[in-house]
Amino acid sequence: MPSAPRSVVEHRAVVAALLSPTPAEDVPLAQSLGRVLAADVVAAVSLPSFENSAMDGYAVRAGELAGASEASPVAFRVAADIPAGRTDVPVLEPGTVHRIMTGAPVPAGADAVVPVEQTDGGVERVLIRVVPEKGAYLRHVGEDVHAGDVVLTAGTVLGAAQIGVAAAVGSATLPLRRRPVVLVLSTGSELVAPGTPLQPGQIYESNGPMLAAAVEDAGGVAELLRFVPDDVEQFLGTLRERVEEGAVDLVLTSGGVSAGAYEVVKDAFTGRGVEFVKVGMQPGGPQGAGRMAELGDVAVVTLPGNPVSSQVSFEVFVRPALRAAMGHPHPDRAVVTATLSEGLRSPAGRRQFRRGTVDAVQGTVREVGTVASHMLGSMALAECFFVVPEDVTELPAGAPVEVWLLDD
Amino acid sequence: MPSAPRSVVEHRAVVAALLSPTPAEDVPLAQSLGRVLAADVVAAVSLPSFENSAMDGYAVRAGELAGASEASPVAFRVAADIPAGRTDVPVLEPGTVHRIMTGAPVPAGADAVVPVEQTDGGVERVLIRVVPEKGAYLRHVGEDVHAGDVVLTAGTVLGAAQIGVAAAVGSATLPLRRRPVVLVLSTGSELVAPGTPLQPGQIYESNGPMLAAAVEDAGGVAELLRFVPDDVEQFLGTLRERVEEGAVDLVLTSGGVSAGAYEVVKDAFTGRGVEFVKVGMQPGGPQGAGRMAELGDVAVVTLPGNPVSSQVSFEVFVRPALRAAMGHPHPDRAVVTATLSEGLRSPAGRRQFRRGTVDAVQGTVREVGTVASHMLGSMALAECFFVVPEDVTELPAGAPVEVWLLDD
Repeated sequence: MPSAPRSVVEHRAVVAALLSPTPAEDVPLAQSLGRVLAADVVAAVSLPSFENSAMDGYAVRAGELAGASEASPVAFRVAADIPAGRTDVPVLEPGTVHRIMTGAPVPAGADAVVPVEQTDGGVERVLIRVVPEKGAYLRHVGEDVHAGDVVLTAGTVLGAAQIGVAAAVGSATLPLRRRPVVLVLSTGSELVAPGTPLQPGQIYESNGPMLAAAVEDAGGVAELLRFVPDDVEQFLGTLRERVEEGAVDLVLTSGGVSAGAYEVVKDAFTGRGVEFVKVGMQPGGPQGAGRMAELGDVAVVTLPGNPVSSQVSFEVFVRPALRAAMGHPHPDRAVVTATLSEGLRSPAGRRQFRRGTVDAVQGTVREVGTVASHMLGSMALAECFFVVPEDVTELPAGAPVEVWLLDD
Repeated sequence: MPSAPRSVVEHRAVVAALLSPTPAEDVPLAQSLGRVLAADVVAAVSLPSFENSAMDGYAVRAGELAGASEASPVAFRVAADIPAGRTDVPVLEPGTVHRIMTGAPVPAGADAVVPVEQTDGGVERVLIRVVPEKGAYLRHVGEDVHAGDVVLTAGTVLGAAQIGVAAAVGSATLPLRRRPVVLVLSTGSELVAPGTPLQPGQIYESNGPMLAAAVEDAGGVAELLRFVPDDVEQFLGTLRERVEEGAVDLVLTSGGVSAGAYEVVKDAFTGRGVEFVKVGMQPGGPQGAGRMAELGDVAVVTLPGNPVSSQVSFEVFVRPALRAAMGHPHPDRAVVTATLSEGLRSPAGRRQFRRGTVDAVQGTVREVGTVASHMLGSMALAECFFVVPEDVTELPAGAPVEVWLLDD
């Protein structure tokens, strides 16, 4: 009697345990979009780092303007001109003002800025028509950020705003988690590269490009190794060569694991640290995971070869593990609840992942395609998976289901 | 009397009109993730492209198995062995069977497959214990996709599943919209590259890295040109050089457009086809847009220099225009409605874009930082913008507001 299948939850834990957190590396700001901080970013400088003007106008000593008004403006000599970026700003001598631009350093001696709109805008002499408050239109050192402040915390995913903040506090590089490197292998001598003619019996290889794109989309680095024929020695040799060349975090295969003869993945990995199991799910039952001692304990995950099984298995087991390894704060897809637009039946003992489209306004989910794992045509139309639990064999229209959004 | 400011809606239209749809280019499958199809993808082959077995088992003539049962199995000679990928499959002669693997071509003459589980699994001779239905476990040509079918439509954004489908129907390259190329220029002699020491009066350049990342995040290609000093001739020379070198879809500047002296962007572009306007928004009032005839009619958009103004202006005007130009079906950020967790006041006549965080469970939005456009520290914490319309000057806690989600 065959043993009970492994649960989805258990196999997720097995795969997750294969991948350790990737180490930190320093990355130039320009290559950091979408990646995850390995450590806090501390401000090297305060923002602003020097007292500066909030307006175009004149730096003044406020006390010298007592009595100024529209009717009786006060005249000053403009002793200096301070554009933004001037680094040799002279002290403001009593009885004079400096013309100053937004963001320019406020001269020592000045205690307020009068906006140009409240003056005659003079360049050598200026008439000022208001009495400013002390401190008016000055931006103070550190009023935004203090040097030493943590401006971004470890685990932050870097978007444009975060990159701007890091640049503003002086970071030229950032400590980021290394992107996990995944070797994607497709096996099967029936596979032919797209773009070449097909012989009868051959098919275009689609799992390799699909999984490589899925790895990149998850934040990893994919290396696609194609068309190892169904020959165990050649398969192992190709693998060994590539693993010995450099850092490989995961070897990901598809196909070659079912009950038939000529199952190269199974034959190559069996007895070498990779365990093959039947997982209680549909599509995607035949799964494998482990480490190959003879290849430096490299992590191996084997997915089934049918395209839809392969995609579903990647989403359920591999994507969250890769994202957790790179420190992503949200390793899983966004999950929402929606109601079924049509009833369904499902076999007992298997967690079904069905493909669907979501109507966000109605809060409903509609199946696209069928559960059949060789059906590719409708795979492109799915916006989500929805889940039918193991112990549920029938759901009526209107029943609530868990929905994984695939385009977040 | 100053003229009324231009509305946000009007300036969005002005910027959008500057960018034409980018042309199509053929791109290898492996570089197509996240990009947009310029044309439909038509299947070069049917899926399956040949009749194949849905199971590991034996290809048979169903009629020859009449009477087979557990109690009285029928014996056959196994005349051939058909692994997946075999291209020279012999005809099935009467009175024999072929051993066949999942996905392998069904031999001419066979009309059903018997799964290995319903046999003794023999290699030279096999005992079969069931009577199969005609057509059992056969996958028919075109049952998934017919050659000539459109499997992906123009405008589709390519994810892993779509790339898998394109590969399966034989596409080695895809016709994609070219990514718009954006020259990002930061102006200001006060700007210093992160990683070098600051003199008093200098600041680290943050808008350039921030806008370059925002362009990449939107799907464009950013080229960051740094630290053109506040010198009009040098600025124009740098620009001319780069535009003449190759395809540039947009020149994007930040800073140098307010009312002060030393406004290099304004000085360089005024009278050359770029119009500077005041837009009724906060932050981000001073905007510019146009085409420079003397530089091959290249599109120019000038954003204000304060970091938050610059980020908000990019999101409101540039991002949707770039994404529309590259054919993206959803050029705008996802918009939801949430209720304010605290009341606020807003000036009349300006559309405010405030930064916030969203509580998806409560459906509320809370402001982070302030509207002040020089405040960078809190920019990194914002998950969304929320919008206070021009004619609204006060909103109580609990009021519904439009929320733009920044991490979609």
